[in-house]
Amino acid sequence: MKIMRLMQKTIAEINGLDRDIMNQAQAHQYNLTKPRGSLGRLEELAVKICGIRRELHPQLKKKRVIVFAGDHGVVEEGVSAYPKEVSAQMVLNFLNGGAGINQIARVVGAEVQVVDIGVDYDFPELKGLLKRKVAKGTKNFTREPAMRIEETIHAIETGIELADSSAKDGISLIAGGDMGIGNTTPASALFCAYLGLSADEVVGPGTGITPETLKHKIDVVNRALQKHRDAFSDPLKTLSALGGLEIAGLAGLYLGAVKNRLVALVDGFIASSAALSAIKLCPLVKEHLIFSHLSEERGHRIALKTMGVKPLLNLEMRLGEGTGACLAMALVDAALACHNQMATFQSAGVSDRK
Amino acid sequence: MKIMRLMQKTIAEINGLDRDIMNQAQAHQYNLTKPRGSLGRLEELAVKICGIRRELHPQLKKKRVIVFAGDHGVVEEGVSAYPKEVSAQMVLNFLNGGAGINQIARVVGAEVQVVDIGVDYDFPELKGLLKRKVAKGTKNFTREPAMRIEETIHAIETGIELADSSAKDGISLIAGGDMGIGNTTPASALFCAYLGLSADEVVGPGTGITPETLKHKIDVVNRALQKHRDAFSDPLKTLSALGGLEIAGLAGLYLGAVKNRLVALVDGFIASSAALSAIKLCPLVKEHLIFSHLSEERGHRIALKTMGVKPLLNLEMRLGEGTGACLAMALVDAALACHNQMATFQSAGVSDRK
Repeated sequence: MKIMRLMQKTIAEINGLDRDIMNQAQAHQYNLTKPRGSLGRLEELAVKICGIRRELHPQLKKKRVIVFAGDHGVVEEGVSAYPKEVSAQMVLNFLNGGAGINQIARVVGAEVQVVDIGVDYDFPELKGLLKRKVAKGTKNFTREPAMRIEETIHAIETGIELADSSAKDGISLIAGGDMGIGNTTPASALFCAYLGLSADEVVGPGTGITPETLKHKIDVVNRALQKHRDAFSDPLKTLSALGGLEIAGLAGLYLGAVKNRLVALVDGFIASSAALSAIKLCPLVKEHLIFSHLSEERGHRIALKTMGVKPLLNLEMRLGEGTGACLAMALVDAALACHNQMATFQSAGVSDRK
Repeated sequence: MKIMRLMQKTIAEINGLDRDIMNQAQAHQYNLTKPRGSLGRLEELAVKICGIRRELHPQLKKKRVIVFAGDHGVVEEGVSAYPKEVSAQMVLNFLNGGAGINQIARVVGAEVQVVDIGVDYDFPELKGLLKRKVAKGTKNFTREPAMRIEETIHAIETGIELADSSAKDGISLIAGGDMGIGNTTPASALFCAYLGLSADEVVGPGTGITPETLKHKIDVVNRALQKHRDAFSDPLKTLSALGGLEIAGLAGLYLGAVKNRLVALVDGFIASSAALSAIKLCPLVKEHLIFSHLSEERGHRIALKTMGVKPLLNLEMRLGEGTGACLAMALVDAALACHNQMATFQSAGVSDRK
């Protein structure tokens, strides 16, 4: 008898949103003391969260952001403005509380977990570091697939396990973040492969490369797309050929979060490529995920538009780490506070429309 | 000897942003462990707040949102979807903690103050209500100026006094909100008069009127613009002719906030018309104010664009009450947390760009 793997099992357990509760939640919104629809996307957000949580007055008390770090073989092609050792250095910065994500998480009341899923560095035992290294970085995908299929599944299942343990810890609002020097290159390649977009319209400057390096980066992505095109009929093979360990981990996190009916916020460019990978593996994931912000990274707009999703924030951010997703937790708090605690026209004695 | 009025005195005391501190703050941002500019508008926001507060590491500990309520004579023309008594009913809802602003303020940790500056209702003594009624609503501006000049100044000075008392109370981050059935009509008229826009491009459905009523509302605004056009060479006369008591109160709040170097967040359509009035009275106000969100109310986009300001959020909100401004306080918190507490490349031992 074949043992079903965690990945298949997770995908098999994913259901759609609870439309019945969502209809009730929408009706409740209409009774609150405000013109109908006047809280705009905060109303949509509250209604959707009711559908995710399957309850009319969800409380999301515990928040967590999980940052996955991994390295990329393709950096040897010279596609990033920063040296590769920054991935490991930033992991230490996360653990010491010095990065952007640490500050934003504190403001919104979220816990930060840091996962080494594929950094090309041997970390000692460090307080707070989850050591789940699948490999010491990916391979250079211009020459061979970035990951073996088994590695990809391992990384995805690592993400699923972290969602499962978050659910057990009582987390109800979760975000994922990424750290990986060079990772706009695989993310761009994934958008192209999954969405049929061209490298010209997707590839951007990442952390800040020169126009010449940008041309080279486009060429690198085009070479990879050409080399691995036979893989693109299969989402898992596509992710293996072009992805990253932190991207696969994030994809697993979203699968696991949706299975556990956690409210999951997707960060920017890298995280969206992971979300897209999860959606390709399990299309029902799409209606659960909340896309938190439009990244300033060039291809994010066309990628999200092609995916048919609309981000909440547009603050010209392009830091990754989960910063945009974590910031959007404040919008979730506001949306649910209004949904759960505003007076109705009747309870407040306020006249409704003429 | 002539006594200088509070309004003139306040305007005379307003200075520009501290560019020297802003340059230092920008240099500090470049040292933080992130690609330059990768926090986008959060970086701009932090640098601007340094310039407002005249310090390199500002802490904004106490937050307040002040909601000004007033009625509008022009509602007798049938320009609103809601009956006029809702203004007073919503004041009670604010005091009871049942409105949208109460929930959002709680989420961001802001205190709510409610000011009757011009509601056409005799409130009893109520805990938490600041009774500063200038008049029981404005006049119908299709027939006569909405306010007498003295009333306008009185309302502006009420707002200034509330900014002054906020500064004394240790508030450093402030927002204003509005409540006033019918007030998208005067706000639209003010945008037209101050910015040279046409009623056709500015007037929208407010809380939700039919297309027929919208046509009528445009006609009402056009009649007012025609009738009062001689006033438009003078900002105070313009505000008197077309404004509202809560709009004038908000304009005063912004003047007072800028004088006291409080960080002031402008809410949506109504609040922006008040901010514009304050800017017309004192152009230096413009560089201090932070426009929090783009309202779904139709004319807001063109009004802000014409003013040359760029809002932070676009969540399709159109509730007023200060809800958008209050929500943006979470962005301010995040921006300053990053600015004040992120590690530098040097302190974290992270390599900078190649």
